[in-house]
Amino acid sequence: MDLKQEIVKRADFFNKEMEKFLRGGEPEVLYDAVRHLPLAGGKRLRPVLAMLSCEAVNGDIRNVMPLAISLELTHNFTLVHDDIMDHSKLRRNRPSVHVEYGEPTAIISGDLLLTKAFESMHNLTVDLPIFKNVEFGLIDCVREISEGQQLDMEFEKKQTVSEEEYITMILKKTAVFFMYAAEAGSIIGGASREQSNTLNEYGKNLGLGFQIHDDYLDMSSEAKTLGKDIGNDIRNGKKTLIAVHALNNASGEDKKVLEKIFGNRKASDEDVKKVYNLFKKLDSINYAEHKAVEFCNKAKDALKILPDSDAKQVLLGLADYSISREK
Amino acid sequence: MDLKQEIVKRADFFNKEMEKFLRGGEPEVLYDAVRHLPLAGGKRLRPVLAMLSCEAVNGDIRNVMPLAISLELTHNFTLVHDDIMDHSKLRRNRPSVHVEYGEPTAIISGDLLLTKAFESMHNLTVDLPIFKNVEFGLIDCVREISEGQQLDMEFEKKQTVSEEEYITMILKKTAVFFMYAAEAGSIIGGASREQSNTLNEYGKNLGLGFQIHDDYLDMSSEAKTLGKDIGNDIRNGKKTLIAVHALNNASGEDKKVLEKIFGNRKASDEDVKKVYNLFKKLDSINYAEHKAVEFCNKAKDALKILPDSDAKQVLLGLADYSISREK
Repeated sequence: MDLKQEIVKRADFFNKEMEKFLRGGEPEVLYDAVRHLPLAGGKRLRPVLAMLSCEAVNGDIRNVMPLAISLELTHNFTLVHDDIMDHSKLRRNRPSVHVEYGEPTAIISGDLLLTKAFESMHNLTVDLPIFKNVEFGLIDCVREISEGQQLDMEFEKKQTVSEEEYITMILKKTAVFFMYAAEAGSIIGGASREQSNTLNEYGKNLGLGFQIHDDYLDMSSEAKTLGKDIGNDIRNGKKTLIAVHALNNASGEDKKVLEKIFGNRKASDEDVKKVYNLFKKLDSINYAEHKAVEFCNKAKDALKILPDSDAKQVLLGLADYSISREK
Repeated sequence: MDLKQEIVKRADFFNKEMEKFLRGGEPEVLYDAVRHLPLAGGKRLRPVLAMLSCEAVNGDIRNVMPLAISLELTHNFTLVHDDIMDHSKLRRNRPSVHVEYGEPTAIISGDLLLTKAFESMHNLTVDLPIFKNVEFGLIDCVREISEGQQLDMEFEKKQTVSEEEYITMILKKTAVFFMYAAEAGSIIGGASREQSNTLNEYGKNLGLGFQIHDDYLDMSSEAKTLGKDIGNDIRNGKKTLIAVHALNNASGEDKKVLEKIFGNRKASDEDVKKVYNLFKKLDSINYAEHKAVEFCNKAKDALKILPDSDAKQVLLGLADYSISREK
């Protein structure tokens, strides 16, 4: 099985459906802003996850498309608003929505992306009790994502954050949405309670591993690879698992250096490099990667009860990919 | 009938329900930001409108409370985000959410207000097809409100706006939500199709009259009365019906003065006064008030087919109030 091909095949199918859904709308500038990010590409991990979860319980992939669109639009809504909050200028190698269209239109287009996520749900052809259940799950997700984003910002200002607090934050900010994508995708596919629970467990661990690996990529890669501002995380005092581990394990001179530079918005490139070297010295980067592998293994374990299928194989491969990808 | 007492009685009942709904939540700062505006008072016109429309078709007011809460939270979501876009520092005589909590938390708390609006809908005890219908109506409203807000901003930059374009804009920005409040309130109350259509028509005209009068109040009142920045509308080139009428009817020297000052962010207080005097001279203020009265009368006309009831009397009074209120 060629994992990349399997994912791209589904992402392509998804992209066509989403493009159709996003066509038209007035005032045109507003809808151009709405389309700016979703049509700029992206991994489509959440929609593909919902599609695979539907397939893994022998469901018809077409039934899950309104949910898949809803997931991607909700994800893009959070990115548009996050980029305003974080003053991020680049996303997917293009100017962020607020850079291209100005902040007011970016705020509204984010609101509209969320609204259109709810709109898409109304295209589900499931029975009404399932509709209500699945739709309420989306509302719950947006609430948890909002809480997670607020915690993330609050953590930047805190001197120390425990590993437990960090996990709670990324659970809300990232993993809850993966849990939902997998669980709701399987429910629409006709899953038994046991199957949907196990896909929820898979999504949770996949999300945790994915986010830890994402923080690692943000910290280690070049700006041109990720399309993000380098050094931002260190200058903003962003509490990634790497930073949390380093701050909780540094002592002596190392601790002083960290306290002086980490979270200092005016830190020089050289200072940023110093912190990065400390992360290596304290083994924090290896620690985080080890944790990501643990979550990946838990995700794969959860799939054991599912019958064998192509989709299951892709889900297993996806877990490995989520912690080995280079962007 | 004491109109004010009738409205306050319902608003008080509503406030208790909404306060209960908004209790708790973590991180606390985020939920304090969520509660900041809804618990700062306000006229509660939209919830009261839904309650009255439910009563007017002999429905049980308790059934409509989840919708009423949803309406008020959606309205507050738009205010929180609008205040960020407009750089408005005051709202309901208190600092705006972004002034009190910073812009990032204000953006998230707005998102959360919208999310909680959808959450509240799930407390409706109506049959599922009605639930889906009513909930889809809310989604449509948020889309139209977003489009209306974008149009409003685009109009500020346009030299001329026709009266028709202006009406389309306030229909989306304000009246559609009044239409929905009245119609959905009546549907939950068990209205016939004819009854819910007539309440939709009432809400539309009430909303149009209300918005025109609102623009008039913004333009004529003192900052301390409304808790808004005075002169802002003139300096921002805000296309109220008054401004639209003046710009389309001024000629000669008057036109030149308008073109020079209107929409000039650096206009002095004296310049603002000049524009205000031109509005008077061109009879634009009277024209707008006349239009508001027309819409108010249409709103009252629409109610004719409803059986007589206390609620109907209050709705009639509300139409008069919406264009005579002083804040």
